[in-house]
Amino acid sequence: MTKQFHGVEKASLKTQNLKKEVIKIFKKYGLSNNHALISANALINAELVGAYGHGLSRLKMYCDRISKKVINPKPKIKIKKISQSISYIDANDSIGFVAADIAIKRAIINAKKTGIGLVAVKNSGHYGLSGYYAEQAVKKNLITMIYTNAPPAVAPHGAIKSLFGTNPICFGTPTGSKIPFILDTSISMINRGKIRVASRNNQKIPFGVALDKFGKPTTDAKKALQGVQLPIAGFRGSGLAWMVDILSGVFTGGNHSGKVKDPFDDFSGPQNIGHLFITFKTNLFVKNYNKRIKENIYRIKRLPKIKGVKEIMYPGQNKYKRFKKNSKKEIKISSMTKKDFTILKK
Amino acid sequence: MTKQFHGVEKASLKTQNLKKEVIKIFKKYGLSNNHALISANALINAELVGAYGHGLSRLKMYCDRISKKVINPKPKIKIKKISQSISYIDANDSIGFVAADIAIKRAIINAKKTGIGLVAVKNSGHYGLSGYYAEQAVKKNLITMIYTNAPPAVAPHGAIKSLFGTNPICFGTPTGSKIPFILDTSISMINRGKIRVASRNNQKIPFGVALDKFGKPTTDAKKALQGVQLPIAGFRGSGLAWMVDILSGVFTGGNHSGKVKDPFDDFSGPQNIGHLFITFKTNLFVKNYNKRIKENIYRIKRLPKIKGVKEIMYPGQNKYKRFKKNSKKEIKISSMTKKDFTILKK
Repeated sequence: MTKQFHGVEKASLKTQNLKKEVIKIFKKYGLSNNHALISANALINAELVGAYGHGLSRLKMYCDRISKKVINPKPKIKIKKISQSISYIDANDSIGFVAADIAIKRAIINAKKTGIGLVAVKNSGHYGLSGYYAEQAVKKNLITMIYTNAPPAVAPHGAIKSLFGTNPICFGTPTGSKIPFILDTSISMINRGKIRVASRNNQKIPFGVALDKFGKPTTDAKKALQGVQLPIAGFRGSGLAWMVDILSGVFTGGNHSGKVKDPFDDFSGPQNIGHLFITFKTNLFVKNYNKRIKENIYRIKRLPKIKGVKEIMYPGQNKYKRFKKNSKKEIKISSMTKKDFTILKK
Repeated sequence: MTKQFHGVEKASLKTQNLKKEVIKIFKKYGLSNNHALISANALINAELVGAYGHGLSRLKMYCDRISKKVINPKPKIKIKKISQSISYIDANDSIGFVAADIAIKRAIINAKKTGIGLVAVKNSGHYGLSGYYAEQAVKKNLITMIYTNAPPAVAPHGAIKSLFGTNPICFGTPTGSKIPFILDTSISMINRGKIRVASRNNQKIPFGVALDKFGKPTTDAKKALQGVQLPIAGFRGSGLAWMVDILSGVFTGGNHSGKVKDPFDDFSGPQNIGHLFITFKTNLFVKNYNKRIKENIYRIKRLPKIKGVKEIMYPGQNKYKRFKKNSKKEIKISSMTKKDFTILKK
């Protein structure tokens, strides 16, 4: 059994029972015990950290993709050792969670051995939150950088058609305290998962984050899904999204330049998403890294604040707070997701 | 003699003569032939690519810092081999150009040998444009990521005081064509060098990119220099700037969290800037990287365009065009910089 990170096992009894249900569903769809556990943990974790767009609202999509044979429930995942530091994983169209779980563990082993780990993955699928894997490396006292691409959602600067995914840039580091620094920021003005949840629940999205398919600004989530999401910061964000597409797609052997299929809408074949995991030992150059990062955070936190701001938060802090809070409670499931459960259990 | 990258040697005769003058000045201030050449090349290159804020307007600053003994003109630079892939450089307060030149060359050697290069630098200074060093790696057919920190210019999200530098994120890759993909994007809405040039020339800056020291939006470049620059994309950009401060400062042993001194205003000691250089062989995972990246760029370029956009440009393309154009012409020097030259040659 894979070790359970992130303390999902410490969540409330109702959450534990929910997780058992999810595991059961995944197993019904052909996943092994271990792969079902890894996948259920990732989905429950997303709910607990408040990333609902990456949580249980996706369960049916994963099962549908297995049914339609575009996710392989019994993958033969190949791990090729390129060097002591570098590994290459062909995920054989596995569910993304499993490929990413193997990859981050390998990146951790490589960095522990040589100081650096570099692991590329091809033939994978959507793996949920990059930050979830970053946490695993950080808990092993490593710095990590993680890149993945995703189906078209964001238009390159100058174009009126989506091509880049929301392509997150993820960076994690130990902080010398129990709350890790986990930056996991998409390159779009809004997370695509959030638009999807808004669309499912008939909610509006903020103005200025997306255009409809005619290139007009829209607050209608359904129209935004058919249209174009805007990158952060114009050409700068577009350049960062392009970088992520190259690192996670072109470099790894995964799909790129708009070829990753939308997991909800396109069952014509596997996604072949690529991921890239980079890990470093924190003490390669300085012996007192933890002291230094603590000092860094301390100095930034004590800066004079904008009126109304109580605390300057580092990336990951809010998520950790939400996780703590949500772990004690029951996970709220939308009526839509409840329906999914009923269908999937049949 | 160090090989001259970037074709500065192909520039017009007047530019060559200007470079000779710059070399002469640097040598007068105590730099060796080789270090003067490296530094002059970097400054002239900045002028040629149109990054005037990083060009000759800085020459006097560097010389002043040497005079005031906060840049060491005769540094004893130590290169420590951590592994075949990893090196650690103590730049001994050298001029930043020289430290960065040694570091990128070492990162290239390490990657050529093992597939990955990781080089950290401490006790360095401002090195000009990250993209200039990225080009060197790309010309050797490597992918590269470069991070450096800088004096306080951008306020962390929630703070009303600058602390982060404009902390560029730099990424470069070969493209299978002669124009490299070089993303070199600062994390502020505007490059600090541009504000500085505007201030020197009494020009206004755009609205919405900076606040004055009282926290009010300003278009006055002088007031902006005393105030706060805004990060791109709110908390996302703030998080990215924080990441760069950690990677280039905390991790390397350099200064961090606002401790890097302003090179123009603060002569109380060396800057101890940190840099981090990462390099990868392009063919670690796929054999046809150049074909793949060509295809990537081709697909993106042929997307339908916004009205008025002739071509979707990849990062680095515009800079290359400016370089080509400016190489044929005489470099225009502002009257302020002309005065600097007169003073420095005395």
